[in-house]
Amino acid sequence: MFVRNCWYVIAWDHEVPADGLFTRTVLNEAILLYRTHDERIVALRDRCCHRLAPLSKGRKENDCVRCGYHGLLFDAEGRCIEIPGADTVPPKARVQTYPISVKNKWVFVWMGEPGKADPALLPDNFSCDDPEWEYIPGYLHYDTPQPLVCDNLLDFSHLSYVHEKTLGGSTAIAQARPIIETLPRGVRLTRRIHNVPAPPYYRALRDFDGNVDRWFIYDFVLPGTLLMHSGGRPIADAPDDMRRAVRLHSCQTVTPETDRSTHYFFQQSRRTADGDRSTTEALFRSLLTAFEEDRAMITAQSAAIDADPDAPMLPLALDAAVVRFRRLVEQLASAERGETPEKAAKAVPATAAS
Amino acid sequence: MFVRNCWYVIAWDHEVPADGLFTRTVLNEAILLYRTHDERIVALRDRCCHRLAPLSKGRKENDCVRCGYHGLLFDAEGRCIEIPGADTVPPKARVQTYPISVKNKWVFVWMGEPGKADPALLPDNFSCDDPEWEYIPGYLHYDTPQPLVCDNLLDFSHLSYVHEKTLGGSTAIAQARPIIETLPRGVRLTRRIHNVPAPPYYRALRDFDGNVDRWFIYDFVLPGTLLMHSGGRPIADAPDDMRRAVRLHSCQTVTPETDRSTHYFFQQSRRTADGDRSTTEALFRSLLTAFEEDRAMITAQSAAIDADPDAPMLPLALDAAVVRFRRLVEQLASAERGETPEKAAKAVPATAAS
Amino acid sequence: MFVRNCWYVIAWDHEVPADGLFTRTVLNEAILLYRTHDERIVALRDRCCHRLAPLSKGRKENDCVRCGYHGLLFDAEGRCIEIPGADTVPPKARVQTYPISVKNKWVFVWMGEPGKADPALLPDNFSCDDPEWEYIPGYLHYDTPQPLVCDNLLDFSHLSYVHEKTLGGSTAIAQARPIIETLPRGVRLTRRIHNVPAPPYYRALRDFDGNVDRWFIYDFVLPGTLLMHSGGRPIADAPDDMRRAVRLHSCQTVTPETDRSTHYFFQQSRRTADGDRSTTEALFRSLLTAFEEDRAMITAQSAAIDADPDAPMLPLALDAAVVRFRRLVEQLASAERGETPEKAAKAVPATAAS
Repeated sequence: MFVRNCWYVIAWDHEVPADGLFTRTVLNEAILLYRTHDERIVALRDRCCHRLAPLSKGRKENDCVRCGYHGLLFDAEGRCIEIPGADTVPPKARVQTYPISVKNKWVFVWMGEPGKADPALLPDNFSCDDPEWEYIPGYLHYDTPQPLVCDNLLDFSHLSYVHEKTLGGSTAIAQARPIIETLPRGVRLTRRIHNVPAPPYYRALRDFDGNVDRWFIYDFVLPGTLLMHSGGRPIADAPDDMRRAVRLHSCQTVTPETDRSTHYFFQQSRRTADGDRSTTEALFRSLLTAFEEDRAMITAQSAAIDADPDAPMLPLALDAAVVRFRRLVEQLASAERGETPEKAAKAVPATAAS
Repeated sequence: MFVRNCWYVIAWDHEVPADGLFTRTVLNEAILLYRTHDERIVALRDRCCHRLAPLSKGRKENDCVRCGYHGLLFDAEGRCIEIPGADTVPPKARVQTYPISVKNKWVFVWMGEPGKADPALLPDNFSCDDPEWEYIPGYLHYDTPQPLVCDNLLDFSHLSYVHEKTLGGSTAIAQARPIIETLPRGVRLTRRIHNVPAPPYYRALRDFDGNVDRWFIYDFVLPGTLLMHSGGRPIADAPDDMRRAVRLHSCQTVTPETDRSTHYFFQQSRRTADGDRSTTEALFRSLLTAFEEDRAMITAQSAAIDADPDAPMLPLALDAAVVRFRRLVEQLASAERGETPEKAAKAVPATAAS
Repeated sequence: MFVRNCWYVIAWDHEVPADGLFTRTVLNEAILLYRTHDERIVALRDRCCHRLAPLSKGRKENDCVRCGYHGLLFDAEGRCIEIPGADTVPPKARVQTYPISVKNKWVFVWMGEPGKADPALLPDNFSCDDPEWEYIPGYLHYDTPQPLVCDNLLDFSHLSYVHEKTLGGSTAIAQARPIIETLPRGVRLTRRIHNVPAPPYYRALRDFDGNVDRWFIYDFVLPGTLLMHSGGRPIADAPDDMRRAVRLHSCQTVTPETDRSTHYFFQQSRRTADGDRSTTEALFRSLLTAFEEDRAMITAQSAAIDADPDAPMLPLALDAAVVRFRRLVEQLASAERGETPEKAAKAVPATAAS
């Protein structure tokens, strides 16, 4: 159950070629992307209306795409404008189009009612295109449902265990409870950890002789996007003294490919002033190692759920943000389907007192 | 939904060994083939009646086959004639047999009521065994349902797009509408294309300096067999002057392995007088390249259908033969099941006017 | 349908490490094994009660295990004793435990009601730990349902065909009907074969110039355990003269991993006095060859059943032990579920007269 009236990231901008066809599946729908002569990105359902062959197996002709099976030609509005051997084209001969927005290197597709596609709902992924920040764009594919990946990003207590030797470095992260605030389309989490060793992950940027104070401040918004400031600072320094701090900004988003698989687009940016390209590369390698730790754990969790789909989970206090976000998704998705909020609310397990 | 009262090609004659066991699945039924002392081919259900072990894991003993699990011995009529350790054999101990015909190197199995197995229903695959024609026997396996492969063979407009660089070479093939005639168990298609470049495929046989007239004249008959005369001739030559023509005959047939997979037996013959063995080999290599193009497209189409099984197709004028053949199959299959023709007709989408 | 109130072998004793975690699935339940400081083996459901991550992805801490996802700590009784960041632990926070017994190198898990776990129900697998007997421990994984493997072990007529060149060597085994006796939780089979060639399998132990008398005497008991004395002796020797005999004892057991896959633990012991380590190794290699023959046949049989799940089997006289054991399993499994014996009995096909 997913919210359709959302912008979903379907690609990094550089993945869509200047000339040629690109295909990716979102919410179980294969979507064809290509650029017109003025570089605008077009999104069409990747399926010929005739006999359902993928249009991505055809070819681009100017601003149109021709099916590679029987040669039907579709324009950028999805209209069939030529059927080889036929004098006329039936009005029904068309494929679905999707609204597209490109913002800060992310290509977003709107999966809901086209009339509701509102650019104001795009997330503030500023560090993806800002001279003050530098990063390497990342992509991972998950063979697990998207909500399990969202859960992971909504609860950083896992850093102490899954990422003990990479992003974590201390059980104090799990000990520290975050402040959780409600946003119109998500939650804001603020977690501050005092007087802990710097995590191994920081080494690419800076060596600390003593302990640090760390912070993670992020919004997690629909449909599954994390926008985070994080960092660490020697405990001796004043809170507003950033001269010896590590300061990072991260944009991450998880897009359901199918009900059972997920696209993960991510970056972790460092301040351009702090280091050079090799610093960025070292940070990226560390991040990938950590994200593979997540993937291994979530894949194992998903397999355990599949083996016994009725097994109940036991919600704990540490799941507060997870539960709040899942409830939001359920309520909006149910509303889209015309269901009552009561029924939707029931689908979300309550948090156990602890 | 398949017609059972049909001869299905199960193997090329050379695939069934002189001594030993051969197994292949047709219409979801594993079938064991072997030859008796007089070279007659026997077809038994490849499944012991006792505990369902495949008989093909056993061994041939004279004209019988012995199950490799517990040693039951079956004769060429499928009767169990020995159970090790038992003095008598229950009359129920037998496996199903199938009528077999061998015609022009194709081994056919009759999948319907044995009493209805009529050799008059065998197709005229003459060029598979004719000194005037030479070919290399071909086989491909498809991981897609058989009707999608039939559709492909019933509409050659795809030659212009799928086979642009192999069998096609011109969009004129798609532009030319074929004449379609109804046969008792299929359709006859005649397509003539005037004044077009020779396709790359012809190069193995002959180089043309100028354009050619081409023709494709074929029957497509139950259960999925194409029998085709095709060729090309310099436009300057008289219609009955074949001295500089390329003349080919092709026999192709698609047999459902399961509901979701298909056997494809094929050959494209050249006149024995036109070339030598190396010509035949070059033609075969080109044909394989083209047939891999089909397989890639049909496999992609099949995956798109599986991802959304309720997606409707949009029938067009170019599908006239496809629709006619599908309707024939549905009507015969329904009749075999005792359903009314009305119900069967409804299952076939009508052609849209265009 | 399996009997739950049974001891199932989950591992060879040496497979469970002195320190660290071991996981294996039994009856569709992933089970975590580890040793406490006093070497006792603990069995916990391998699934955190919080969000279902496998505990085997975490780590052992003294006699406890810590989940690798969010750090919950469980003791050897399955109680959660720590939730990072929480002051208290809800009483519901616990994972299931299983009774464990270790007997003669086999680790048994009790899958039924813990209060009914009775050591008296453990099988007499004495040769797994007896200085008079020597063997190499074996394990195979089957991608087939467990009952098909039990069937195989309940009917040695297959030795003449599946194992013609290994364990069998003569069709006389299939000809000889065993004596079948009913045991409280299984059946006892006694099969004696007179005056036959020694099987190839014996060569590692002894060469015989002439024929031998052979015997196979075994119990096959719940949930799927074979305990067998077998051997062969020159026909000239007196029945009680074992000086030139081959004498073997074998313990084998099949444990359902899931409804569709099976663990197979086995050993075939020789008398320690008869040979040395290289003899044991030669015997083991021969046994593995034979057991791969079984696996190939049963896997093929299982595929044939899957292709047509409603196909009936034809029970024969040689299936008497198979039918008797299957009926026992059905009756006990039905009784556990509170079904009437009549209903359970119906589920088992009767033996055909022959």
